[in-house]
Amino acid sequence: MTPPPSVNSSRAPMVNGFDPADVDRLDPQVAELIQRRSKVFGPGYRLFYREPPEFVRGEAAHLFDADGNDYLDVYNNVPCVGHCHPHVVEAVHRQMQTLNTNTRYVQRAVVEYAERLVAKFPSELTRATFTCTGSEANDLALRLAKYVTGNEGVIVTEGAYHGLTTEVAAISPSLGTGTPLGRHVRVVAAPDRRTAPDGDLAAEMRRRVRAAIADLHRHGYRLAAFVADSIFSSDGVFADPVGFLQPIVEEVHAAGGLYIADEVQPGFCRTGQSWWGFQRHRIVPDIVTIGKPMGNGIPIAAAIFRPELIEEFDRNVRYFNTFGGNTVSIAAAGAVLDVLESEGLLSHADEVGQVLRGSLEGLIDGHSTLAEVRGAGLFIGVDVVDGAGEPDPVGAADIVNSLRDRRILISASGLHGNVLKIRPPLVFNDADADRFLTEFAAVIDGRD
Amino acid sequence: MTPPPSVNSSRAPMVNGFDPADVDRLDPQVAELIQRRSKVFGPGYRLFYREPPEFVRGEAAHLFDADGNDYLDVYNNVPCVGHCHPHVVEAVHRQMQTLNTNTRYVQRAVVEYAERLVAKFPSELTRATFTCTGSEANDLALRLAKYVTGNEGVIVTEGAYHGLTTEVAAISPSLGTGTPLGRHVRVVAAPDRRTAPDGDLAAEMRRRVRAAIADLHRHGYRLAAFVADSIFSSDGVFADPVGFLQPIVEEVHAAGGLYIADEVQPGFCRTGQSWWGFQRHRIVPDIVTIGKPMGNGIPIAAAIFRPELIEEFDRNVRYFNTFGGNTVSIAAAGAVLDVLESEGLLSHADEVGQVLRGSLEGLIDGHSTLAEVRGAGLFIGVDVVDGAGEPDPVGAADIVNSLRDRRILISASGLHGNVLKIRPPLVFNDADADRFLTEFAAVIDGRD
Repeated sequence: MTPPPSVNSSRAPMVNGFDPADVDRLDPQVAELIQRRSKVFGPGYRLFYREPPEFVRGEAAHLFDADGNDYLDVYNNVPCVGHCHPHVVEAVHRQMQTLNTNTRYVQRAVVEYAERLVAKFPSELTRATFTCTGSEANDLALRLAKYVTGNEGVIVTEGAYHGLTTEVAAISPSLGTGTPLGRHVRVVAAPDRRTAPDGDLAAEMRRRVRAAIADLHRHGYRLAAFVADSIFSSDGVFADPVGFLQPIVEEVHAAGGLYIADEVQPGFCRTGQSWWGFQRHRIVPDIVTIGKPMGNGIPIAAAIFRPELIEEFDRNVRYFNTFGGNTVSIAAAGAVLDVLESEGLLSHADEVGQVLRGSLEGLIDGHSTLAEVRGAGLFIGVDVVDGAGEPDPVGAADIVNSLRDRRILISASGLHGNVLKIRPPLVFNDADADRFLTEFAAVIDGRD
Repeated sequence: MTPPPSVNSSRAPMVNGFDPADVDRLDPQVAELIQRRSKVFGPGYRLFYREPPEFVRGEAAHLFDADGNDYLDVYNNVPCVGHCHPHVVEAVHRQMQTLNTNTRYVQRAVVEYAERLVAKFPSELTRATFTCTGSEANDLALRLAKYVTGNEGVIVTEGAYHGLTTEVAAISPSLGTGTPLGRHVRVVAAPDRRTAPDGDLAAEMRRRVRAAIADLHRHGYRLAAFVADSIFSSDGVFADPVGFLQPIVEEVHAAGGLYIADEVQPGFCRTGQSWWGFQRHRIVPDIVTIGKPMGNGIPIAAAIFRPELIEEFDRNVRYFNTFGGNTVSIAAAGAVLDVLESEGLLSHADEVGQVLRGSLEGLIDGHSTLAEVRGAGLFIGVDVVDGAGEPDPVGAADIVNSLRDRRILISASGLHGNVLKIRPPLVFNDADADRFLTEFAAVIDGRD
């Protein structure tokens, strides 16, 4: 399972994304726009797909280009209740016309939303702090963990991504060698059950975390926090077996650290079996961070705390997020909760996800370059491998781009960039699933 | 000018803000809401004013409570074109109904907005990176400065605030002792011209920065960046004399560092004489960060770079901000530019600001507890002092709260919390100014 050395995760976006050298091969109008783009943005502004599409409209799980072509969105988790959901549009519009201000003023709506939100969490987690992005939420969670424990050490998985601020980029190995990990950071291998010697992944993860804690101690660091996304999105999507996180909680607490559940990706019904991904594993974190789908695209995120943790921190550390939980963001977030509940998207994600995973398993049967289907709810990963069974990021990129040519939008992730990432808006329905499966079958058949 | 030791800036919000011990003295409905609030938020969620108002509607420079009472907003800079400006409301609504996605897709609007934005900057600054908050923009700017220079040292002013991520909180002395400065950080005294020995503030600031650089060197750090808000908002509002920043640019460059202009507060016409505060001082920074008013309350912020700085960083460091520059935020930001231009708010801020400052200077004449009026455009500070001429944060808090009781909203800032902060939406008009001045006169007369 060693990756080809020239294709590590820091290169992955260039493998399946647009290469500026190809600009002349594009439609002239798109090429012109991309050239103007490169004059106002740095080269870090990468584009999805070898032939980047330009969308002008979105609805449910569909994106449309200027010619009216209908692309199926099997990738975007931010518009969780569907692109341009009318209930969210209306709630934001009403609030925009009325008032948009910050949490330094008494506001009924932000209190009511916070009450509604924390009620979705285990009873131990009762306090919310609103931020604008998942990165800000993780940055705050980590700062609080260091403050409360008095320790510095952090453990993450080897393909983890926890955000873009300096502090959380330093605990995000998926960013590659251009962003070195902090000296206080240790990584553990991703929870791939094929790597658990006796098939007991829970025991293996406990051993890995224990070894990482010991290594931190040897270098003079004590543990502040273990941080994990319970669907292990950027590691390559590892959902099972349920419960493998439980022993880690025990190890982390025994070492004096906190367990931070980064639910920016698995949260808000995504995994189909519980509102939050960590609940599938029957654990109660010390801090939970949430973001991306929270406002269906309006920037809002949060950290949820055990009250005893935030009390002391808050009394000593000043923190005010100007836009965090502003009136309009809260209106969007409230409308998202309404739709998740009224449209029953938790059980919907579970049902459609099961159908999708089952069908994908049937489809990959007999395709030696597709090795495994994993996931929960509407978060699914499919391993692409080469003839020797090794991770094949170029093959994954080819599939991603062939699907794009058939107007199906997915992406790839994982430590080696070889895991197809299938993560549609939660309103993805049976007809959408049929369309996706038909095109997917055509692409993989075409590769044989 | 030594502050009373018990009232440092980390305490200031408690001095002029709400004290939870007073909850029983409030209107029962507001008290009940504040008590519910304290069960879902940590104690860090502080409220403005000893008697916190609850607003239900905003329009131009006015906020209204549930009884229809009209409060004059002389404080909020985020709704720069006025609360609920219909052009911004309409632009956001149209975009929300159509498409809201991210910069990994080709999008005409985000390119056009970026072109329009960078055209507002000196020709040396040509590349933008969109973020959600000014904190994220400063975090990125600082990370880039360290990367490009290979150095770590940072110099800020002693009352500076540059944001809430771990990285920028560590360069924000205004957060007080609960958030220690990094060991790589040095502070220079605020640019108060009364502290320049021979009245030459530019020369004095150069001496201070040179001394800070020397001290960094003595401790093994070389300079990565000098970071300053050109209106020195949290230091206590220091706008003049024009040009005092120029020698700092030279010192910083000579030491191998970058000059980062934090324009989150003075940017977007606020200072009345130029789009960006640094332009008043006739300097060209290496990086500029902007935020708060950029989307009139919809979260959007940015860092603007010299292209040679971002090129190398971007090729090696992966950075993708999910919500940064999303389609809806860009629609809001574009509408804000429209209004700033079509309503002539740059010259408006200059004109109304001059009238306000002139009238305030007349009003404080003969009031020994009001020592000086400073500022530019619609960013004005007034010093409140005690009988001995020392900073008087309690006096400032009394004025802030007396004005609130007369439905005028301002706040206090400054190293000692004794500077009245007068910073209304830019649409603040002559009638608003008259109303403010009348109430201000009544409050200060009542104090004699």
